[in-house]
Amino acid sequence: MATEQSSNRVNGINLNVLNETVSAIKGDPELGKCHFRARNKWVDAAHNCTTVSGFYGAKQENTHKQVFELHADEPPILAGNDDGANPVEHLLHALASCVTTSMVAHAAVRGIYIEELESELEGDIDLRGFLGLDADVPKGYTNIRVTYKVKTDVDNLSKLKKLAEFSPVYNTLTHGTKVDIQVEPK
Amino acid sequence: MATEQSSNRVNGINLNVLNETVSAIKGDPELGKCHFRARNKWVDAAHNCTTVSGFYGAKQENTHKQVFELHADEPPILAGNDDGANPVEHLLHALASCVTTSMVAHAAVRGIYIEELESELEGDIDLRGFLGLDADVPKGYTNIRVTYKVKTDVDNLSKLKKLAEFSPVYNTLTHGTKVDIQVEPK
Repeated sequence: MATEQSSNRVNGINLNVLNETVSAIKGDPELGKCHFRARNKWVDAAHNCTTVSGFYGAKQENTHKQVFELHADEPPILAGNDDGANPVEHLLHALASCVTTSMVAHAAVRGIYIEELESELEGDIDLRGFLGLDADVPKGYTNIRVTYKVKTDVDNLSKLKKLAEFSPVYNTLTHGTKVDIQVEPK
Repeated sequence: MATEQSSNRVNGINLNVLNETVSAIKGDPELGKCHFRARNKWVDAAHNCTTVSGFYGAKQENTHKQVFELHADEPPILAGNDDGANPVEHLLHALASCVTTSMVAHAAVRGIYIEELESELEGDIDLRGFLGLDADVPKGYTNIRVTYKVKTDVDNLSKLKKLAEFSPVYNTLTHGTKVDIQVEPK
């Protein structure tokens, strides 16, 4: 990975921008409060589509440079047409991407250089829970294993493992969160 | 939404396939045990890419009809290049898609017809947690609000709200799960 010292980049992260954000939020904690958003529309059967266009943060509405469109479906064995990764696979993506970015960014501000970084994830779900066949079987993931392979100075590995714990998705999954669902007529 | 009575479809869901899966798992609970998987690779800065190609379930390896590629990045305000929705937005997509599919499929087996269904999600994160500015501020989502608008018989709305609770991602987020992270040299 290129590290452009001239523009103060480590692991590709522009430290000028990141440090500016950190300083601003230190000075005014209200700037750190974010509302992230998504809209989802059912297409047919197990196929549905989410659009992500912007979020509230730094006391303002922020628009993404494009509208992101994310498709979910189920494979035929789960009564779908396989036109997208399924929701629990998308959850693994959310986790992997968040832990990766958290490691890379927090390493950057600490001057820890990473050359390559990849991960494999595996999570366990017993479908008897989702299908309502046994009320004692959990409906969600009971365990997720993540293995990172990192090309960096070997002394950095234990530090990176610690930095993973800054990840918002990791923390949401391990601590749980409140989810309120409303169902209204259209 | 089309409902092809001839092939025993409700809400587009093929009930023959779904009921077959349910019967098989009832007869042999081992068939319900799934391991879902993803691989992620860091691209540069806050940009990384996940691939999803298959999973273990029904006592066999299952390959998706294509490899799904999912990109994550951060907007410029968060030191990224905005080449994908960010990880916490992907998490909202995982939740929306899972609750939607859970509602649609469980409604189908109960003979509840849905014409249209869409949702809006908003989740709260205070970046002071992720940035390590205040150890008392949670790093993950503290609250996620989901509002569904459904075109269906009005009597179905409260039933659908109850069916949302079958969602594996909803249950993973509200109950939390164990996540083990290993960091190894490459």
